[in-house]
Amino acid sequence: MSEARRRLILDLDTGVDDALALAYALGSPGVEVAAVICSYGNVSMRTVVRNTCAVLDLLGHPEVPVFSGADRALDATAPFAPSAGVRRIHGENGLGGASVRGWCRMAPQSALGYLREVATRGDDVEYVATGPLTNLATELVNVSGLGGALGRVTFMGGALAVPGNVTPCAEANIANDPTAADAVLRGGLKTRMIGLDVTHQVVLTRDDTAAWRNLGTPAARFFADMVDHYITIYRQNNPQLGGCALHDPLAVAAALDPSLVRCLSANLCVDLEGPTRGRTVCDPDRLRDAEKSCEVALEVDAARFMDYFRVRVTRALS
Amino acid sequence: MSEARRRLILDLDTGVDDALALAYALGSPGVEVAAVICSYGNVSMRTVVRNTCAVLDLLGHPEVPVFSGADRALDATAPFAPSAGVRRIHGENGLGGASVRGWCRMAPQSALGYLREVATRGDDVEYVATGPLTNLATELVNVSGLGGALGRVTFMGGALAVPGNVTPCAEANIANDPTAADAVLRGGLKTRMIGLDVTHQVVLTRDDTAAWRNLGTPAARFFADMVDHYITIYRQNNPQLGGCALHDPLAVAAALDPSLVRCLSANLCVDLEGPTRGRTVCDPDRLRDAEKSCEVALEVDAARFMDYFRVRVTRALS
Repeated sequence: MSEARRRLILDLDTGVDDALALAYALGSPGVEVAAVICSYGNVSMRTVVRNTCAVLDLLGHPEVPVFSGADRALDATAPFAPSAGVRRIHGENGLGGASVRGWCRMAPQSALGYLREVATRGDDVEYVATGPLTNLATELVNVSGLGGALGRVTFMGGALAVPGNVTPCAEANIANDPTAADAVLRGGLKTRMIGLDVTHQVVLTRDDTAAWRNLGTPAARFFADMVDHYITIYRQNNPQLGGCALHDPLAVAAALDPSLVRCLSANLCVDLEGPTRGRTVCDPDRLRDAEKSCEVALEVDAARFMDYFRVRVTRALS
Repeated sequence: MSEARRRLILDLDTGVDDALALAYALGSPGVEVAAVICSYGNVSMRTVVRNTCAVLDLLGHPEVPVFSGADRALDATAPFAPSAGVRRIHGENGLGGASVRGWCRMAPQSALGYLREVATRGDDVEYVATGPLTNLATELVNVSGLGGALGRVTFMGGALAVPGNVTPCAEANIANDPTAADAVLRGGLKTRMIGLDVTHQVVLTRDDTAAWRNLGTPAARFFADMVDHYITIYRQNNPQLGGCALHDPLAVAAALDPSLVRCLSANLCVDLEGPTRGRTVCDPDRLRDAEKSCEVALEVDAARFMDYFRVRVTRALS
């Protein structure tokens, strides 16, 4: 599949693996990151803006516009603050404690204004969300024609056939805003779900971070420090993986090359009540509908993805 | 796929849809029902024996050997008795209240003795379980070489990507004995799971039972009465289906012709604790294993199955 002149809008909650996703995108040949829209999630939205700007600067792309987005779930009454468990996984600063610098600039325009222009102009862009689906739910309500303009939106989140990672049923991005996720999944938008079903099959080890260190650049050292922290926590929380899962980079990779994953076509909804709250599941009311809105990734060509990941992230870090 | 000279061992908890599965098997060209092994489930095991014999007599196959099996889950201390909800679905007699007669005979041999002969002789048979997996778990422990002799065992049960039917996560057959199901799924046996993912996509309506009535045979009238009851309850419990789900017949059909379903190759386990008890889910510890023991049906050629079902059941009832 040709990836020539592909443009991406990334909706991130940067985050260790969001930073890796950004590196994957920036290291992909012929790919332009058109904009980053920030969301609360792995850290607060303000910290996500700072982290995103810092990572873009570090990777030599300060020109990418950065928009602020949701600072809380649709139903929340106060700005989001990460739990102790999440602060442990991503570090207090969201980047594994690796030293962050960078000029924290914001695009002068709002994300909604920017997306209205995208929808009006009919830009050919891929939208990839790697955090909660709060921004997307808000944008679909407030930007006329956005769903049609974006085509199929790829999101990292959910767990269809595997256990969740915050409860037995719920994955973290969906659990952060089940209402928003349900609205997106039942709202008619075409989506591609890159959930734990596949992201727990793509694992990075210290062999890779050691190779980055050998590159000798500030970006490579920063990413090695950041991911070594992440791997340490993964080894405690998920010892069976033998490394850290590459959740968000796989979402970007699958958006650019859907042949990396094998999908079930399905109509999903999200459980909003009880102990299964935050579970992504096939909507019983639409099980027999001929038209399916979501492509749910259940299998992944892990070896090919890891090859892509190594080449592209190394290019971004060099 | 040729179905010439296929032999089936059916492990049933007869039950309305088990009776339909038996009719499907007996109406399939070139298929011989080699034996029925009875399990508690939709009704008590004793009632299952009676119902199985009655249905076999009604369909003109009193020669099929009927074996008794488990009367309770592996961990249970008392024989199984169906809940009020299950008695409502399948009727007090397990056959929708349709009038049952028939000579209640039992095979002189035990099911384990019979299966030891099957394993020793290397008979070419398909094993299809449509009730709890208690019998199968017990047989695999007690019959040396059974797993290898049976090849891939098909079972109706579980819900991978859809809600359960007794809890948000658990399907009835698995919920009746999660321990047995987990032992079967993690025990190395090759299996094919026909769960709610696909059985809620194959639906029978009163148009079909009306057509059976027109056949005018006692068997057809009995099946029409039995299934009309089942459809009435389904319309109350699952109005979105517009009829009754053909759970057990689809399992027999997929065992005879696996091309009716599209499957995910996976290694499953069963949640044994907490609110998700009885959930079939991909085993996190074996997610990246190259070898997968279960073919989990996620899509079904519903139109082709319904064609097969109508022709074969009509043949059995004529």
